Amino acid sequence: MNEELKIGVIGTGMIGQDHIRRITEVLSGARVTAVTDADRTRAEEVGARRGATVFADSASLISSDDVDAVMICSWGPAHIDAVLPALAAGKPVFVEKPLATSQGDCVKIIEAEVAAGKRLIQIGYMRRYDAAYAALKATIDSGAIGAPLMYHSAHRNASVPPDLYTDDMAIADTMVHDIDVARFLLDEEVSQIRVIAGRKNSVGGALRDPILGVMEMSGGAIVTVEVSVNIGYGYDIRGEVSGETGTAELAESNHVVVKSGDGFAGRVPADWRERFIEAYDTEVQDFIDNARKGVVGGPSAWDGYAIQVVSDAGIEAARSGRAVPCAMIEKPTLYN
Amino acid sequence: MNEELKIGVIGTGMIGQDHIRRITEVLSGARVTAVTDADRTRAEEVGARRGATVFADSASLISSDDVDAVMICSWGPAHIDAVLPALAAGKPVFVEKPLATSQGDCVKIIEAEVAAGKRLIQIGYMRRYDAAYAALKATIDSGAIGAPLMYHSAHRNASVPPDLYTDDMAIADTMVHDIDVARFLLDEEVSQIRVIAGRKNSVGGALRDPILGVMEMSGGAIVTVEVSVNIGYGYDIRGEVSGETGTAELAESNHVVVKSGDGFAGRVPADWRERFIEAYDTEVQDFIDNARKGVVGGPSAWDGYAIQVVSDAGIEAARSGRAVPCAMIEKPTLYN
Amino acid sequence: MNEELKIGVIGTGMIGQDHIRRITEVLSGARVTAVTDADRTRAEEVGARRGATVFADSASLISSDDVDAVMICSWGPAHIDAVLPALAAGKPVFVEKPLATSQGDCVKIIEAEVAAGKRLIQIGYMRRYDAAYAALKATIDSGAIGAPLMYHSAHRNASVPPDLYTDDMAIADTMVHDIDVARFLLDEEVSQIRVIAGRKNSVGGALRDPILGVMEMSGGAIVTVEVSVNIGYGYDIRGEVSGETGTAELAESNHVVVKSGDGFAGRVPADWRERFIEAYDTEVQDFIDNARKGVVGGPSAWDGYAIQVVSDAGIEAARSGRAVPCAMIEKPTLYN
Amino acid sequence: MNEELKIGVIGTGMIGQDHIRRITEVLSGARVTAVTDADRTRAEEVGARRGATVFADSASLISSDDVDAVMICSWGPAHIDAVLPALAAGKPVFVEKPLATSQGDCVKIIEAEVAAGKRLIQIGYMRRYDAAYAALKATIDSGAIGAPLMYHSAHRNASVPPDLYTDDMAIADTMVHDIDVARFLLDEEVSQIRVIAGRKNSVGGALRDPILGVMEMSGGAIVTVEVSVNIGYGYDIRGEVSGETGTAELAESNHVVVKSGDGFAGRVPADWRERFIEAYDTEVQDFIDNARKGVVGGPSAWDGYAIQVVSDAGIEAARSGRAVPCAMIEKPTLYN
Ligand SMILES: [Mg+2]
Ligand SMILES: [Mg+2]
Ligand SMILES: [Mg+2]
Ligand SMILES: [Mg+2]
Repeated sequence: MNEELKIGVIGTGMIGQDHIRRITEVLSGARVTAVTDADRTRAEEVGARRGATVFADSASLISSDDVDAVMICSWGPAHIDAVLPALAAGKPVFVEKPLATSQGDCVKIIEAEVAAGKRLIQIGYMRRYDAAYAALKATIDSGAIGAPLMYHSAHRNASVPPDLYTDDMAIADTMVHDIDVARFLLDEEVSQIRVIAGRKNSVGGALRDPILGVMEMSGGAIVTVEVSVNIGYGYDIRGEVSGETGTAELAESNHVVVKSGDGFAGRVPADWRERFIEAYDTEVQDFIDNARKGVVGGPSAWDGYAIQVVSDAGIEAARSGRAVPCAMIEKPTLYN
Repeated sequence: MNEELKIGVIGTGMIGQDHIRRITEVLSGARVTAVTDADRTRAEEVGARRGATVFADSASLISSDDVDAVMICSWGPAHIDAVLPALAAGKPVFVEKPLATSQGDCVKIIEAEVAAGKRLIQIGYMRRYDAAYAALKATIDSGAIGAPLMYHSAHRNASVPPDLYTDDMAIADTMVHDIDVARFLLDEEVSQIRVIAGRKNSVGGALRDPILGVMEMSGGAIVTVEVSVNIGYGYDIRGEVSGETGTAELAESNHVVVKSGDGFAGRVPADWRERFIEAYDTEVQDFIDNARKGVVGGPSAWDGYAIQVVSDAGIEAARSGRAVPCAMIEKPTLYN
Repeated sequence: MNEELKIGVIGTGMIGQDHIRRITEVLSGARVTAVTDADRTRAEEVGARRGATVFADSASLISSDDVDAVMICSWGPAHIDAVLPALAAGKPVFVEKPLATSQGDCVKIIEAEVAAGKRLIQIGYMRRYDAAYAALKATIDSGAIGAPLMYHSAHRNASVPPDLYTDDMAIADTMVHDIDVARFLLDEEVSQIRVIAGRKNSVGGALRDPILGVMEMSGGAIVTVEVSVNIGYGYDIRGEVSGETGTAELAESNHVVVKSGDGFAGRVPADWRERFIEAYDTEVQDFIDNARKGVVGGPSAWDGYAIQVVSDAGIEAARSGRAVPCAMIEKPTLYN
Repeated sequence: MNEELKIGVIGTGMIGQDHIRRITEVLSGARVTAVTDADRTRAEEVGARRGATVFADSASLISSDDVDAVMICSWGPAHIDAVLPALAAGKPVFVEKPLATSQGDCVKIIEAEVAAGKRLIQIGYMRRYDAAYAALKATIDSGAIGAPLMYHSAHRNASVPPDLYTDDMAIADTMVHDIDVARFLLDEEVSQIRVIAGRKNSVGGALRDPILGVMEMSGGAIVTVEVSVNIGYGYDIRGEVSGETGTAELAESNHVVVKSGDGFAGRVPADWRERFIEAYDTEVQDFIDNARKGVVGGPSAWDGYAIQVVSDAGIEAARSGRAVPCAMIEKPTLYN
């Protein structure tokens, strides 16, 4: 395809608008031709500003001839009702995380994609497109540290909104990224998960924070995840793989080291936008480049399903204090 | 301008093709509509592949209505014959370094741009667009280290082609980037330069390598530059500013730290493409974004002239062993 | 006491000889006046070389007027039979780890020391004397990271002897140092411990390696410990505390960064001797300085007991796959 | 010698008292038996406190049978009058830097030592005993970076006393350490030196600070030295060697990295005592160990002379703005 990819965006909230900006002002090979949103006024405003046609609903947007590919940025519960029609239309679809909000819905989507006979879905787990995680994965795959045996992850947020962020969200919204990365780096599924909570960070009031996730993987690797969401100093993403003959860890991301006061110092990113801005660009450019070639790559519906299973198990594990197994359906060959 | 910027590229060699790829496949808001090259066959090949019209010469390309902005990627001696017509046509022009190959030609270009009454030229000194140099500049400007007093730069290449790379190129092709960065970081011109050569790296045979440049700046800051061009291990770009109350230095650029063998290790970029790939993208996107708004920014013709003066003085300093003053014309107000 | 402290050393094997060398050639204020060993020939050889009187057994050495303080470097099971007489004699005693080999013996020692009415025992948990751990402790105590909530420890050995090192030793000989450090840094006892083993490092054959210890502390902090004992690249000791408002971690210990080959590199210590050589010097100098002032400090019999309890629980936890509580006697006020 | 070395200390000011503390409380194999000082009261106080005999003057102390070795900690101009009698007495002598205060006096000392037929003098250039500099030297000597071609040194003090510290002291008291290290690391003498001063740090008022020393070595290596003495944030000692196939640089010396506020941070030593406390211990222990074996090592009288020559040339270079050659007498074979 030499023509620019025409993208229809479902959901014009914060993340939707950000992807529209990205496609329009930063990336190459695509433009946003269509938008829709449950909030019609918001869709009108964005469409007018960006020169995109406003559609009344997902169905009409998806079926439009002016839409080559679909980007779903609505809230989680609405995803399935946009994903299934997009699959039916045979159009490439980029879905922001989560794929859906229940394992059952994820399975329905998988069945539909398998029935379509080819991958059409890319999910917005952007960390896989981050240069540092990609280098970590490449290091493992190169054999430089032997077979990986443990992975230690830390996911620290400067702060979360006290009235909106719940105990479950620490797993379903935050730890899911570490679950995705662990599966990506180790090429194993999660067999069972424990979640251990100790003394609470007083900054977060009654919030169960920090928590420690401990996962045992299908091939025997062990994963630890610290989630701390009110640590104040920034958005600090750490990852270290311990293998048979070595270790590999993410380097710090600062550009400059300053010496002043009584020592040296470097910056930690303020939030995920600062830390992963290039990863967001890269994942969407990859979606565009692939779609123009008629293929879809990146995190798949299977990944979305597997993460949903582990997230559900993690929430149960946190409540029960017990290890919870992660039972999954058989993996369709489409995803191998 | 809501329309894509139509760019005509003069010179379709390695760097020209790379910019065409960048504009076409990576960046947003522009497309390459026209190409020309002294090697007509090469221009035809590139034009056909990229869907751009092939012009017989610079003059016809520049005057074409299908060209909104000009990008000059021919070899240095040909720059002036493309820059001056582009200025006459009032079209934004991106010129790969050097601006021209003599101070006299640089002055002619400056006079033409001043006569045009507004900036039209951006020169491809890409380091200013590198995130790390930008952060170093921002650190200085924030006052975090007080007024800058010294700048130490190291510019190390893994290797240079033994038959093509000359003693003068270590200054005119290599050290010019450090000269540019020193002027950028310190906001001062170079008053005089010494170049000291000692024992030669035996890897480079008769090449005068490494060399040390020592510059005294117009405001009294002092700059040292190590240029080593056969150091083997990679392309290593170091910079540290020492100020009244602190220092700031470029961090290493590696993404991963690996422990194996008998210690830890991280990567140094193999070459300038790896180190500055994002800076190249950013500088051209900035040119595009500006041109669509009718303005031009980034390194100016004045910068190109000033660097030429220092480069010439540096070559004389290396030959004579003496400090050579850097005499410049008065700076036109256009460049303040 | 202006006189040099006269030390009698029980056990003249590798560690005993190393402490004798340290006292004789490195440290100030003490000399070795007496030695004994189950292997009489070895004791004779060391005594002759170092000018120390050879005693037939611990009892006669301890009761000698030529012995101000006792250093016990025999194998673990023999410790109690030297510690109790030293306590009875009211002489300061430095005991290499472990204090004893059962919780019951540890309790007997504690009771004897409590009966003596003052601290007489310092145990050789040398990490508390390491400058980096001391700085980490000082950072926590300064309040710079708020109350500590998690501690992540990694304890990696280049290799262990395949025929001698057992699964239990990974806890009783190796993880005990991390248990000690966790208690030291967090000022909490261990409430329960889990030990999780996954895929084995093929380098170690049937050895259960690596293992993950997960401890819940009496005040609610959570501790993770990776023990990997055949990782090849060196002796790598990592520690990171995550607190309410920040984190603090051990820096790398290398002195030099080398760039060569295709990147940068630094050294990891080859083994514990290289990593902790100064900590060994410091702990023994502290013992000497204290003994000359009539006091004893550093890791106490209580620490030795507490570590024994957690080590026993850890071994059970590794075998059972369950969390095992760490039940302890009431802490005598002597140790507050 | 199995007996402790009996040391007589000449000069009981700050540095003298610190060495006495070191010998008495920290190091092994020596004790201070004799002291003298121009200030008799101070000598009496120190002697009484440390149990050392107080002598009326250097001559009587040096000739005492109760003195095996001499340590000279008086002020620089008095050094020669203690060094020459010690040489005449054939006793090992540790001289604090500088060896003497003129090249002529240094030559007299060298002639006397040569006449004695063996090395008796160790000078207190302690950096050679620092673990990091020693590792840097070992790296060069290992061939890991090929033949060294450039050395970049930075010597930064938090502050200097405004009324006492002069322009000349920046060379004679401060830069001398970098001169010593450059000679040590590169195994070359200094052929000529330039000193360049630019804009002054306003913190230091009229003080010429910072300054840049540029040295050309006898074998062709090039050395740059930044001396900044009012930089505020600490005592920051940097060193990087650039060789034919790689570079090697001193690592930071911090023990802990803290994340808090909005980034990460580590400590820079407050002053030279903190940075080099172990190097001072090591150099004096080496002097003791050697003296007990009847030999003397470490920085020699030749080193003291060579540094004096370069320091004198540096002061002249700073005043004249010109490169000043460093002419030296022929090196006696005693120092090879
Ligand atoms: Mg676009
Ligand atoms: Mg484009
Ligand atoms: Mg001793
Ligand atoms: Mg002593």
